[in-house]
Amino acid sequence: MDPDLSRLDSHLSALGVDAYLIDAASSDANQRYLSGFDAPDPFLTCYTPTTLSLLVSGLEYGRAKTESRADQVRRHAEYDRRALVDDYGPVEAGHRVAAAFLSDAGVDSVAVPERFPVGTADGLREQGVSVVVDADDVLIDVRAVKTPTELDHIRAAQRANEAAMAAAEDLIGQATVDTDGRLIYKDEPVTSERVKQAIEITLLEHGCGLDETIVACGQQAADPHNRGSGPLQAGEPIIIDIFPRNKSTSYHSDMTRTFCKGEPSETLREWYDLTEQALEAALAAVHPDNTGADVHAAACEVYEDAGLPTFRSDPETEVGFIHSTGHGVGLDVHERPRLSTDGGDLTAGQVITVEPGLYDPKVGGVRIEDIVIVTEDGYENITNYPVALVVD
Amino acid sequence: MDPDLSRLDSHLSALGVDAYLIDAASSDANQRYLSGFDAPDPFLTCYTPTTLSLLVSGLEYGRAKTESRADQVRRHAEYDRRALVDDYGPVEAGHRVAAAFLSDAGVDSVAVPERFPVGTADGLREQGVSVVVDADDVLIDVRAVKTPTELDHIRAAQRANEAAMAAAEDLIGQATVDTDGRLIYKDEPVTSERVKQAIEITLLEHGCGLDETIVACGQQAADPHNRGSGPLQAGEPIIIDIFPRNKSTSYHSDMTRTFCKGEPSETLREWYDLTEQALEAALAAVHPDNTGADVHAAACEVYEDAGLPTFRSDPETEVGFIHSTGHGVGLDVHERPRLSTDGGDLTAGQVITVEPGLYDPKVGGVRIEDIVIVTEDGYENITNYPVALVVD
Repeated sequence: MDPDLSRLDSHLSALGVDAYLIDAASSDANQRYLSGFDAPDPFLTCYTPTTLSLLVSGLEYGRAKTESRADQVRRHAEYDRRALVDDYGPVEAGHRVAAAFLSDAGVDSVAVPERFPVGTADGLREQGVSVVVDADDVLIDVRAVKTPTELDHIRAAQRANEAAMAAAEDLIGQATVDTDGRLIYKDEPVTSERVKQAIEITLLEHGCGLDETIVACGQQAADPHNRGSGPLQAGEPIIIDIFPRNKSTSYHSDMTRTFCKGEPSETLREWYDLTEQALEAALAAVHPDNTGADVHAAACEVYEDAGLPTFRSDPETEVGFIHSTGHGVGLDVHERPRLSTDGGDLTAGQVITVEPGLYDPKVGGVRIEDIVIVTEDGYENITNYPVALVVD
Repeated sequence: MDPDLSRLDSHLSALGVDAYLIDAASSDANQRYLSGFDAPDPFLTCYTPTTLSLLVSGLEYGRAKTESRADQVRRHAEYDRRALVDDYGPVEAGHRVAAAFLSDAGVDSVAVPERFPVGTADGLREQGVSVVVDADDVLIDVRAVKTPTELDHIRAAQRANEAAMAAAEDLIGQATVDTDGRLIYKDEPVTSERVKQAIEITLLEHGCGLDETIVACGQQAADPHNRGSGPLQAGEPIIIDIFPRNKSTSYHSDMTRTFCKGEPSETLREWYDLTEQALEAALAAVHPDNTGADVHAAACEVYEDAGLPTFRSDPETEVGFIHSTGHGVGLDVHERPRLSTDGGDLTAGQVITVEPGLYDPKVGGVRIEDIVIVTEDGYENITNYPVALVVD
């Protein structure tokens, strides 16, 4: 199903420009979304309310014609790129080809995303094209509200995620504990690396890939972005955060669980219970009448009421709840909306994570993350995985 | 080993600016290289010949201090980001924080890469910072010449690549052929998807990941960027192109082989022999006295002498040798130098692929790709995999 771009159309009209222009490879989510084309090297997509045009290299020309959403596909050679390179060098030649492509599409002025390359922007300006930065990055807001097809893609990625989490939990569950407290399976220590490999192989079997996974134990778990390494220990928190991308659709999911093999400390148990309360409080606040900031506030209040610091109460704290409560998920694993102090309105059809957590090198870390769809009357939790700390 | 940035220093001096600035996540190779920091969300790196400074979110602050190459790490909260958001909104607040960070580092003027985000560039300009686009993208040239440590990282990725190619060839070799000419293994068709899974699991076991692999059979192989899908057929070319990234170092390798299960057609055999000749001719031209264009010309001549079209003889041809002869490999899988009509000087220490090929929907496709290091007296081929078409 093609996305509804009417909001982009009215935004272009408000900005007073002819077109929206993207210069990126399809690893850029805006590019993948607007062009509907998957290509490893940067190409141009020019969107007007009537026509979607692509400018690609000769190498991508055949595939772009059959696989992209474009109404018309042009290639560099059509604009005498080689002669322009001889006259102006490859950089200015690229800008002149881009300007000729826009002119061909009847476009004199373009809006571009915040992260559009400045080299192309300045180069087009020198060729007389008006380039306006869309400070609102409206295409990111358009992308935040998913079509039913996109929701299916995210659900599929989440099913793969659950299978991978089960493989990880199973490995921890089957492990024994040696006299040093290390987890052992089949005579070898259970390391972060070994659990990540079990996760990644399961994801591959489900058509997903991923750049990184977090399997962080003990002190490592106190840093929310530490990927984790080395042997896992009993009695310590093990944070497992998996954010796979489906290889064919490019849509993501994102889920975190915290496990403890054997008996947790009293503090770890308290932190887990508090975090589960924060999750429930935040979920209860997910509603189109609320903002991302409201959801974040609901999680923060649980922690602050328990006397623990948050980024909201102390922006420079290095312990406590030291990140936002969640983010949108789609073609990017981190996208709008943000569930943070400056998070704006929620809208039905958005997909968000809700992921409160606590961190302190003295204790380790706890995080519980579900992924949900914002609905007209609240939310639909598409996470089908138990919330439980202890793995025996 | 830290990279040699003396060329960047003299380039900054020639441009008359104080610093080189990057605004990107570490998935951007320039960012990863200069900062030495691996983080999923964009951050700022400001390089002057005396000091490397990072500006990160609170979430990344602890890890940036211990893991990056930076002399100093700042975080948004140090520049009153929250108050600025209240006064100016999040976008302008971001620009004001960035400008304050630069001012703190004594920097009034910066050079930025071509693909630096125009939103940040225009925003800094409004705050009085001079932003010059480095049209030469000199950091990409700096990155092209590898340190011994970087060469070791690429060699390690190539060892993983060879193991993965062997797993793929083994699966094709062990397959039987059914009456429809389809490859069968353990009672199931051998599909592109199944071969890719064997490749990807092998890469994971060797510490590598990858976004895509090409396993393209028959007509699919006629499109150099077709990833391939469905059953593999005997007597048809099967192009396997693997470009893994080591997950810890982020360095890539890149290698292609073309296989045929059973007897190839006469044309396929001729194309393979021609492509092996083109590979040898191109390799013989790899030398610091030559340019990337010279290497490309050597490959093109083999094909053109045989009466086959190339992009050099006909920029709009859709059959024949329809891509460049190769590219640099490092933190990006496609980087400088280019072995194409506008490819510049080669330098010892560069790592390049040499990958001639022929394509036509009537025949399929053939590509053979080795990865080599440019040395003082020619090249060192770091590819340790046989070149052979037929798999029995």
